[in-house]
Amino acid sequence: MAIPKEFFSPQSVAVIGASRHPGKIGHEILWNFARGFYKGRIFPINPNSEKILGLRCYRSVLNVREKIDLAIIAVKAETVPSVLTECMGKKIPAVIVISGGFSELGPAGKLRENELQKIVAGTNTRLIGPNCVGVFDAKTNVDTLFLSKSRLLRPHAGNISFISQSGAVGTTILDWLAESGIGISKFISYGNQADIDETDLLEFLASDNETKVIAAYIEGLKSGRKFMQIAKKVSGKKQVIFLKAGKTKKGSQAASSHTGSLAGSAEIYSGAFKQTGILEAGNWEELFDFAKAFASQPLPASNRLAVITDGGGFGVLAADEAERQNFELPEPSKKLKLKFKGFPSYASLKNPIDLTGDADAERYKIAVESCLKSDEFDAVLVILLFQVPTLEKSIDETILALSRKYNKTIVACAAGSHYTQQLVRKLEAGGIPVYPTPERAVGALRAMLKYKNFKV
Amino acid sequence: MAIPKEFFSPQSVAVIGASRHPGKIGHEILWNFARGFYKGRIFPINPNSEKILGLRCYRSVLNVREKIDLAIIAVKAETVPSVLTECMGKKIPAVIVISGGFSELGPAGKLRENELQKIVAGTNTRLIGPNCVGVFDAKTNVDTLFLSKSRLLRPHAGNISFISQSGAVGTTILDWLAESGIGISKFISYGNQADIDETDLLEFLASDNETKVIAAYIEGLKSGRKFMQIAKKVSGKKQVIFLKAGKTKKGSQAASSHTGSLAGSAEIYSGAFKQTGILEAGNWEELFDFAKAFASQPLPASNRLAVITDGGGFGVLAADEAERQNFELPEPSKKLKLKFKGFPSYASLKNPIDLTGDADAERYKIAVESCLKSDEFDAVLVILLFQVPTLEKSIDETILALSRKYNKTIVACAAGSHYTQQLVRKLEAGGIPVYPTPERAVGALRAMLKYKNFKV
Repeated sequence: MAIPKEFFSPQSVAVIGASRHPGKIGHEILWNFARGFYKGRIFPINPNSEKILGLRCYRSVLNVREKIDLAIIAVKAETVPSVLTECMGKKIPAVIVISGGFSELGPAGKLRENELQKIVAGTNTRLIGPNCVGVFDAKTNVDTLFLSKSRLLRPHAGNISFISQSGAVGTTILDWLAESGIGISKFISYGNQADIDETDLLEFLASDNETKVIAAYIEGLKSGRKFMQIAKKVSGKKQVIFLKAGKTKKGSQAASSHTGSLAGSAEIYSGAFKQTGILEAGNWEELFDFAKAFASQPLPASNRLAVITDGGGFGVLAADEAERQNFELPEPSKKLKLKFKGFPSYASLKNPIDLTGDADAERYKIAVESCLKSDEFDAVLVILLFQVPTLEKSIDETILALSRKYNKTIVACAAGSHYTQQLVRKLEAGGIPVYPTPERAVGALRAMLKYKNFKV
Repeated sequence: MAIPKEFFSPQSVAVIGASRHPGKIGHEILWNFARGFYKGRIFPINPNSEKILGLRCYRSVLNVREKIDLAIIAVKAETVPSVLTECMGKKIPAVIVISGGFSELGPAGKLRENELQKIVAGTNTRLIGPNCVGVFDAKTNVDTLFLSKSRLLRPHAGNISFISQSGAVGTTILDWLAESGIGISKFISYGNQADIDETDLLEFLASDNETKVIAAYIEGLKSGRKFMQIAKKVSGKKQVIFLKAGKTKKGSQAASSHTGSLAGSAEIYSGAFKQTGILEAGNWEELFDFAKAFASQPLPASNRLAVITDGGGFGVLAADEAERQNFELPEPSKKLKLKFKGFPSYASLKNPIDLTGDADAERYKIAVESCLKSDEFDAVLVILLFQVPTLEKSIDETILALSRKYNKTIVACAAGSHYTQQLVRKLEAGGIPVYPTPERAVGALRAMLKYKNFKV
């Protein structure tokens, strides 16, 4: 049964376990609906309160006369089966169980989780969780995350969707994306996957028009065979990047205590990803690094890379990493070098092209544009030490205008504190992914090239 | 001849090539002395100006009657030999040549660089550069960096010294350290090393009481044999971490265009570092990551690591990386588990110890203190998702107090935007290194353990 749209665009939501006490999960979730930008009806469910946050409370979803599209359950584990049963009575199509205390605790918890499965089986209700933080949709402002916005930012609407078996891993990536000004379509933390699993979510996102890139953090797959079938189809339509955690013995034991996952062999997973056209991230930083590159940049046609820098050392580090990652750094042809007009004699016109520490926006414009235009390169890595005194504050506009003008892969590297970060945010909001080190920038390019190659 | 102290604590400085035009290198350097916290005399040298920034200008250092301890040269390459000769006439003990246009340009530049060497040879003057950004001393406020403080922060006084052949790589690390609230003793960007080279600097820093950790970015060594002799002695006194750039063919070519360095074989360098007890960083991020761990934490006695987290997924990722890096994650003994009083039934008391998403400071205190006290562990990795609603804002004080109380290695991991970063800065300023991913935190621990092992 398909995942109902009510998870992401409900007209009405019930928060079961709504609390009047700030800091309590049932309070934070209600607050985010009541005080956020969500436009639909909100029904707090709490048998012991009259009103919370100005909203009338109900003893049970069964006491609500209006239709409820989405129920969010945040009560003690023992109480979940009974309130879930009431949701069935109310025929609520979408239910998210935030509560923990299920298969992640071992056999006794597993029994309780089976109970939830039995309750929804054969009904028209689909369930996300238990043991998760649920859903964030940047467009409809559905936000079941129990993390306050003062502590964790939410990204604006964009084209990355992110599914995560871990709430913490998932939400911190939201926080990073928001700070970088990078948008998201849908975020789903699905925890123990008692009903909806990663394959269901993949299938759903494959036909979601607002999703271009799917990033995923998983600990274990529920059904390998189903995953293989669906994933192959999905990766034909969307760019899919997975981070598999629990690949070692210790990591796999931790995954079992965390989401009750059977982690399985690292090799089997890597093989499955390769076969189904999914790009595997090696660690958490890569998942984030790769997703933002895929979200905004075209894949490079081949491996001929131009590196342009105003800091020579960064050029050396980039050249080292580019060679390790099998990029070519061809020296610009004589013809191309003629375009580099007005460059000082101490600038290096090889590759890396070193504009040196007195570069200005015009020198960058000439170098970057010449390389984007030229058929000598398939991608450009622009290293920007914004700190040098001659570089105008408007350099971000220069680079963004070039990126819009040419349909060629461009990524940037910039390192530094507040002054740098301001400009980094502008570049990222404009669609140029920026990395704090040359190595990570080359890593993102490498991921794009790898993906390009197994798409062919 | 030893490096004169005048580079770092001059009573008087001359800025040769001082300029009235903001954005010009000779202006920015003068500005940082004149408007910064430097306490000594300042002599701008410029034959075409009467006054700059309110300071009387001189035609030449020879026109200054007072003694000059340090001269900073920022004029065109062609003019450097003549002004340097004047510095000899004035018997200035310390000269920094910021100007580029020397051996990094090939044979013609190399000839000009030889000229500089001849001018200082046999004199009592020592020279840093050319083609560098010079010196920053956080204690004396000597600051020859031509990067304005509005664009690049300066760290407060601390115990890391950093030498860098690249000005850009070096200064951005200063910017990061400053933002993190981590202090520095001395920073030296030494460029083409016409006179003073990395070995001289190592030797000097070895006997500098304010330096505990020496971090270095190098492209090429000037004299391998001298380096081997000195480095061995230095690593016996200080913790030394090197990043060698230009390890590939392309990187080595770039290094030659950058600082005129002959980069040499990667294997030879790695072997030399190992033999001399120097820890090698694999990339730029590691150089920064490792330096801040060494600066504030004791080395772990062995490889038994406790991972404590409030986000299960982070625990899984940490466990994966710990196993890959040959750490043991022993499960706490029954006796130790008894100390974890009042923990909820859904907390996992294995290792990682998962305090779960409703953890508070008290739960962290009990878990972290029990592990620090216990002889079952040699190091503790504390993963802090500050975003969870139950975790008090004062959690940084809880962790810092424990770190002060026990002399055991502790590193942290925290990921997120502004709210998280506030708390990260407090932890780092208090001496706990914090990493944005579990993998990087484990990487820093691994570096410490490696260092510990080749010290024995």
